[in-house]
Amino acid sequence: MLSAIKTQGRRPWDGIIPEVELAIYRKTGWGTPTGLGKHPALLIIDVQYRSMGDEPLPIEEAIKLMPTSCGEHGWRAVPRIARLVEAFRSIGAPILYPHVAPKGPQNRGQFEQKVPGVMEVPQHGYDFVAEVAPQPEDILIPKFQASAFHGTPLTSYLVGLGVDTVIVTGCTTSGCVRATAIDACALNFKVVVPEDAVYDRSQTSHAVNLFDMANKYADVMPTEQLLIALRQIAAAG
Amino acid sequence: MLSAIKTQGRRPWDGIIPEVELAIYRKTGWGTPTGLGKHPALLIIDVQYRSMGDEPLPIEEAIKLMPTSCGEHGWRAVPRIARLVEAFRSIGAPILYPHVAPKGPQNRGQFEQKVPGVMEVPQHGYDFVAEVAPQPEDILIPKFQASAFHGTPLTSYLVGLGVDTVIVTGCTTSGCVRATAIDACALNFKVVVPEDAVYDRSQTSHAVNLFDMANKYADVMPTEQLLIALRQIAAAG
Amino acid sequence: MLSAIKTQGRRPWDGIIPEVELAIYRKTGWGTPTGLGKHPALLIIDVQYRSMGDEPLPIEEAIKLMPTSCGEHGWRAVPRIARLVEAFRSIGAPILYPHVAPKGPQNRGQFEQKVPGVMEVPQHGYDFVAEVAPQPEDILIPKFQASAFHGTPLTSYLVGLGVDTVIVTGCTTSGCVRATAIDACALNFKVVVPEDAVYDRSQTSHAVNLFDMANKYADVMPTEQLLIALRQIAAAG
Amino acid sequence: MLSAIKTQGRRPWDGIIPEVELAIYRKTGWGTPTGLGKHPALLIIDVQYRSMGDEPLPIEEAIKLMPTSCGEHGWRAVPRIARLVEAFRSIGAPILYPHVAPKGPQNRGQFEQKVPGVMEVPQHGYDFVAEVAPQPEDILIPKFQASAFHGTPLTSYLVGLGVDTVIVTGCTTSGCVRATAIDACALNFKVVVPEDAVYDRSQTSHAVNLFDMANKYADVMPTEQLLIALRQIAAAG
Repeated sequence: MLSAIKTQGRRPWDGIIPEVELAIYRKTGWGTPTGLGKHPALLIIDVQYRSMGDEPLPIEEAIKLMPTSCGEHGWRAVPRIARLVEAFRSIGAPILYPHVAPKGPQNRGQFEQKVPGVMEVPQHGYDFVAEVAPQPEDILIPKFQASAFHGTPLTSYLVGLGVDTVIVTGCTTSGCVRATAIDACALNFKVVVPEDAVYDRSQTSHAVNLFDMANKYADVMPTEQLLIALRQIAAAG
Repeated sequence: MLSAIKTQGRRPWDGIIPEVELAIYRKTGWGTPTGLGKHPALLIIDVQYRSMGDEPLPIEEAIKLMPTSCGEHGWRAVPRIARLVEAFRSIGAPILYPHVAPKGPQNRGQFEQKVPGVMEVPQHGYDFVAEVAPQPEDILIPKFQASAFHGTPLTSYLVGLGVDTVIVTGCTTSGCVRATAIDACALNFKVVVPEDAVYDRSQTSHAVNLFDMANKYADVMPTEQLLIALRQIAAAG
Repeated sequence: MLSAIKTQGRRPWDGIIPEVELAIYRKTGWGTPTGLGKHPALLIIDVQYRSMGDEPLPIEEAIKLMPTSCGEHGWRAVPRIARLVEAFRSIGAPILYPHVAPKGPQNRGQFEQKVPGVMEVPQHGYDFVAEVAPQPEDILIPKFQASAFHGTPLTSYLVGLGVDTVIVTGCTTSGCVRATAIDACALNFKVVVPEDAVYDRSQTSHAVNLFDMANKYADVMPTEQLLIALRQIAAAG
Repeated sequence: MLSAIKTQGRRPWDGIIPEVELAIYRKTGWGTPTGLGKHPALLIIDVQYRSMGDEPLPIEEAIKLMPTSCGEHGWRAVPRIARLVEAFRSIGAPILYPHVAPKGPQNRGQFEQKVPGVMEVPQHGYDFVAEVAPQPEDILIPKFQASAFHGTPLTSYLVGLGVDTVIVTGCTTSGCVRATAIDACALNFKVVVPEDAVYDRSQTSHAVNLFDMANKYADVMPTEQLLIALRQIAAAG
């Protein structure tokens, strides 16, 4: 295992979680970095037009066209995800696309009752965003619940591929990303969340979910820093 | 099904999630209340001395004696949990205690590497808090991960008992409560989180996790309001 | 719950499991019938042309055209499954179709290495057998492993529908039917396997798997007897 | 990966599965050996006195003292399991003990209704058989259902340990061994069942379950042959 990475500088939750609360976590040893393993997989979750609309717009405008959209927040993450895709393709590591499966009347479950709007997404909204769309060698994971592991064959794929580290990108930070990170950690995969390659409709919730994941389940770091770690893995190859 | 409950008045996340973000959720129909079913189960998660210390102290003091403690935040939740226990006993509905199993060296997994302190909890810390401790007819669910469903027989118990609604209490809001609510929703149980019967070490994270759950996975309401709904179930029974 | 059904007369495993072994099970109380609950669901597993070929042929001939075929054994089960479908439609109870998803190169897992031929099934082999094909209101469950529960949202559907009893039909008795019955029992659903509505390529393995399931996991009975029980449920409605 | 092993000579199901049925499997390519990986784990399932009684007796006698006993069939497997334990200890590979957890009234689920006798096992019956009992460094997995994976943290342990191959020993072949092999295969672990280190109350069912597993889910071989493969792993290590 490569040595764990200590993230420096400004963190996404600075100014949102008060210092008095940060001190409690610091004093009791939460959020220890665990580093990457040798066999990472990249998860690109729900990067479909339903989650960002067809073009970069402020979220207040974007939701008028596509109510499930995160607007510009999503579009800003795309180039970072694209760089991770490129890095994974160059080392031949697996890329998986857990994505929202189109919902029929049978899918009106508890989540759909909480959020009825998800039943109204137009067909086009389920298309993958072209800039980071899957290639034939990638693995598609249609899913019906928040976690990419819940009710899907994801665990079987990861075990079969010998993966030890899961990189979680996409959206939303407070929804499918968070749920997936919890499950990946519970299964004892190492987990990394590149903080600027995930996105949400609420920036406050985005930041606090990054804080929660960084303390409990995942190493949270900028994409730039993750790319350096991936190059180390490739070099150690 | 009883009619869903519209929560009134001040919400725990007011003043933390800005109005401009709240407006986005409101406009796009997140957080619709779904109501309770007919067969609720009460989950009391991790209400062990490890999560609140032996007596009510401010969290800054409590963590000096028990680093995993939430201090007074936990102690304040105990009487609300006790009222729910009483209500469940009076209608003969099941009470389950998912709880942290003592950790041996074999349990040093991804979570324990993120939070090494959880390996150092003294044996006494695993005892149930006396005020709401299990009775012989209750169901104990030792667990090793955040979600009460992960790697446990909880789903089998709930199916066998014919449960359709899961009430989640205990701690932490941003840890095991959140992870359990996600899984319960993904399994299509109705989910209720009584906002003052769950607790955390960060009040900001507590509030934002309630916001996330209220929008996506659970009906979030004060214990008082939930007790009224439970009485309606008993009367309809 | 309706009173459990005691199956009379000749059993499928008579003449295969020796009397001396049957006596051991009898003396120690295995195979107690548990009866149906009030809310059954019908699973029709893998009733696709891949599992029986395009027309009824002896299995020795059928495998020359479709190597995964069970030949006539499958075709004989179809009219019994059709009667169950009719019964379920008449009472408005849910019908679910767990079925083999077409396999791409990414699906070459442990099972596909044991049975390389499953990678070569022609596209037409994945079509549902017309006599019992799904209608728009039915639920499709593509699956990649033997059990209809493994890596699929089946549990979520059953919980959401309030199902308490799972009827397992289709194929193969020693493969997906057995694996599904084990999981359904483990989840505390009541399980029924109509012995002449499931099929296999080995009649010996078919019979012994029915024996195993009847003793441990499921009530095993002829379709005729199950239809009577379903009428009782409808009448009690 | 080591080259897969082609098992020679007499197979446990010879004389039980007729040649005409064996020919169908042979012609259509079932039961291809897949070999071991580099990181095996040994599962010793339910080798507790409840499954074999206190001393070797013919099963007909043994069930009078302990109704869940497999009698001599179990005792014959013990020295083979002991040799595997020794081999695993010598290479420092993990040994896990999925075992039947004592059953309280809350555990009267679907399985316990099929087999009421399992509720009556005396406390001593839950003790591990001394000859192959766990050491402090081994991992205990209490379980309530047939599969060692169902409702347990077994997957998390195997992922955390970097295991790629699961060796399944213990009992019963037609119960917990079979259920565990199905799940291990579904998760894409390589699976080996040493045919003389697993046991059952019915010799017919034992043989047919080995046949099913050998064709679909696992490499089935004598313990002697597995020990050779393990020595190759140790030498390559």
